Amino acid sequence: MIPNDPYLLTPGPLTTSLSVKQAMLHDWGSWDNDFNQLTAEVCTRLLRVAGGENSHVCVPMQGSGTFAVEATLGTLIPRNSTTLVLMNGAYGQRISKILDRLGRRCLAIDKGDYHPPRGDEVERTLRQHPEIDQVVVVHCETSSGILNPIPEIAGVCQKAGKHLIIDSMSAFGALPVNVAELPCAALISSANKCFEGVPGFGFAIVDKTLLSESEGQCHSLSLDLHDQWRYMEKSGQWRYTPPTHVVAAFLQALREHEAEGGVAGRLARYSRNRDRLVAGLRELGFQTLLADEWLSPIITTFLSPDSPDFDFPRFYEAIKARGFLIYPGKLTVAESFRLGCIGQLHDEQIDAVVAAIADACQSLGMPVPVPPPAAAPDNLENH
Amino acid sequence: MIPNDPYLLTPGPLTTSLSVKQAMLHDWGSWDNDFNQLTAEVCTRLLRVAGGENSHVCVPMQGSGTFAVEATLGTLIPRNSTTLVLMNGAYGQRISKILDRLGRRCLAIDKGDYHPPRGDEVERTLRQHPEIDQVVVVHCETSSGILNPIPEIAGVCQKAGKHLIIDSMSAFGALPVNVAELPCAALISSANKCFEGVPGFGFAIVDKTLLSESEGQCHSLSLDLHDQWRYMEKSGQWRYTPPTHVVAAFLQALREHEAEGGVAGRLARYSRNRDRLVAGLRELGFQTLLADEWLSPIITTFLSPDSPDFDFPRFYEAIKARGFLIYPGKLTVAESFRLGCIGQLHDEQIDAVVAAIADACQSLGMPVPVPPPAAAPDNLENH
Ligand SMILES: Cc1ncc(COP(=O)(O)O)c(C=O)c1O
Ligand SMILES: Cc1ncc(COP(=O)(O)O)c(C=O)c1O
Repeated sequence: MIPNDPYLLTPGPLTTSLSVKQAMLHDWGSWDNDFNQLTAEVCTRLLRVAGGENSHVCVPMQGSGTFAVEATLGTLIPRNSTTLVLMNGAYGQRISKILDRLGRRCLAIDKGDYHPPRGDEVERTLRQHPEIDQVVVVHCETSSGILNPIPEIAGVCQKAGKHLIIDSMSAFGALPVNVAELPCAALISSANKCFEGVPGFGFAIVDKTLLSESEGQCHSLSLDLHDQWRYMEKSGQWRYTPPTHVVAAFLQALREHEAEGGVAGRLARYSRNRDRLVAGLRELGFQTLLADEWLSPIITTFLSPDSPDFDFPRFYEAIKARGFLIYPGKLTVAESFRLGCIGQLHDEQIDAVVAAIADACQSLGMPVPVPPPAAAPDNLENH
Repeated sequence: MIPNDPYLLTPGPLTTSLSVKQAMLHDWGSWDNDFNQLTAEVCTRLLRVAGGENSHVCVPMQGSGTFAVEATLGTLIPRNSTTLVLMNGAYGQRISKILDRLGRRCLAIDKGDYHPPRGDEVERTLRQHPEIDQVVVVHCETSSGILNPIPEIAGVCQKAGKHLIIDSMSAFGALPVNVAELPCAALISSANKCFEGVPGFGFAIVDKTLLSESEGQCHSLSLDLHDQWRYMEKSGQWRYTPPTHVVAAFLQALREHEAEGGVAGRLARYSRNRDRLVAGLRELGFQTLLADEWLSPIITTFLSPDSPDFDFPRFYEAIKARGFLIYPGKLTVAESFRLGCIGQLHDEQIDAVVAAIADACQSLGMPVPVPPPAAAPDNLENH
């Protein structure tokens, strides 16, 4: 939002408001009560958005979102238990990689790049493997942009008496969720996604009973969520130096989130961004990876046009020269690119990015509208 | 440096320049080449300051300084080796706590709160315990402010053929060090100390050969320094989302560090701050914990006056009301408080904080100059 800064059409770090960035123009004593109050307000607000006031606690964790995921898994999952990971993309795979590294037993349902895990298959697996104690799922699998059916999966877990841990990194703040009603043991997210803060920490909304029982379980000192929580309860402070400026920016971001109408307001704007982007790009001849039913209002994957003139690095630079950063694809099955709908993007920016993409196609010598690419990978429409 | 913000007389997070904070008024795509160039320049500059261009690499790590310490220990220390930790305060103790958590065997020389570990005793211990593979020491033990004799200890380690790992969190950038000449296997620090950036990441300057041999050794995925390095070498990017704004601020801080004359310039200003603070407080009747020879130019511990009218929380608030945040003590042996010399503090601020402390004493009803406290804990002067 500073003149000449490109807009970020990415799934975070994203374009933040100037007022969020300006909240970083102060230095805070990490030990001082003024700063402790910021932390407390951040946690209270997040817990309220998650509907966890009576059942859960909010524990922030320094580092990127992955650090918060590893902290949550390492702290909550007992050493000798078995975990079921529902995978349909890079972030589900990362969860299983973390569990491997931690030496925690783990089974997976791997749906490949773009199919959602469904309740019935989870139910079947839980029946076949009664040793499973917890299930981990990604809310919006940012690698394809698919929105996984969380309530369906939570229902199955509840019926089977299994804990559910949700990586809601790119969804929390824009998709309604109530951790007490789902229910879920933990929901993980970070500062630089749908709340539109700047990157530097993540957090988990964790079932209080479960967290109190997890003392001494974590494989890491820095990532021990239980220790962080206890220390914060006692002192109001983070256990080790917090990213003070990032926390101050995040509180400002939370206030702006509320002013926009909270989750509902943000969901409305992001959905509108997605619809406008998808319509605009379809008009140019681009095709989405997923059927409409699975498109999240977070990020959308478009298949790269099947044209000999298409070259992603050149496409990227041509769009960047017009003031927008887009995001590369992350699929194994098909060439693609992604466009985020989150951050300080409104109709004006969405229309401008569609125009920039049209221009970029032209400058790459691709006819506009681009001819539709060859048929999408099969099964995309039915699952 | 924003009007009305208190000055931080703390060991970091500290008072940064306005221009460092203003570098955060932009959003960066963490995948974009413009941002990768920031990261590359940060690493090149740090490596140069450490004298490691030909022997070491610089690997940043998201999170606070402790995360970088744990990442370095977890990545470099083989599972079946033994480590000697030189402890003389809270940060040395934390190192041994990390090793315990990681299940790495460890021995300690514990010198208590304020005595430096010396070369002869390290040499003796290494002779008695040939199974020791590496030694870990804290450069400036921030809990007391003592400056440990690093060259002396490095000499002993080199002679005995042991790797030396230095937690130089609060010293690097202000105290001269040359990782190739010492030599040391790794030196760890963070963004918000003597380089005067804002908090959000740490980094390690690591011997390149040793790091290349450490694949698969780390207990954690997020904290795997080897993976972070390899990924960065290959892609120019951080492995997981970097704290983009904090990195941009840090590059600006590094440029200002160079403009001030680098390590020598900063050492001169911080030493002057310390001398002025110590002289001013001694004149008020306060006593330093340490003899002059061991006082670091980073932070100084003062013994709390032995007056019935002294109460730290009230003292703190009285000084805060005058625009300065001081730091509580962290000793087990004596009541104390600490004053940092680092950050954007110049003669004017030092003189003002001394005046604020004098005022605070008066408002607490303590006579100024305060009568010297009872004799300092014994042995303070000779070791
Ligand atoms: C669903 C999901 N999980 C985990 C992550 C990892 O977050 P980070 O890059 O902050 O470590 C992301 C990042 O985009 C994500 O979208
Ligand atoms: C010597 C030393 N080591 C480690 C740390 C821990 O750093 P952090 O609080 O950023 O985790 C500090 C912090 O002051 C320190 O001074």
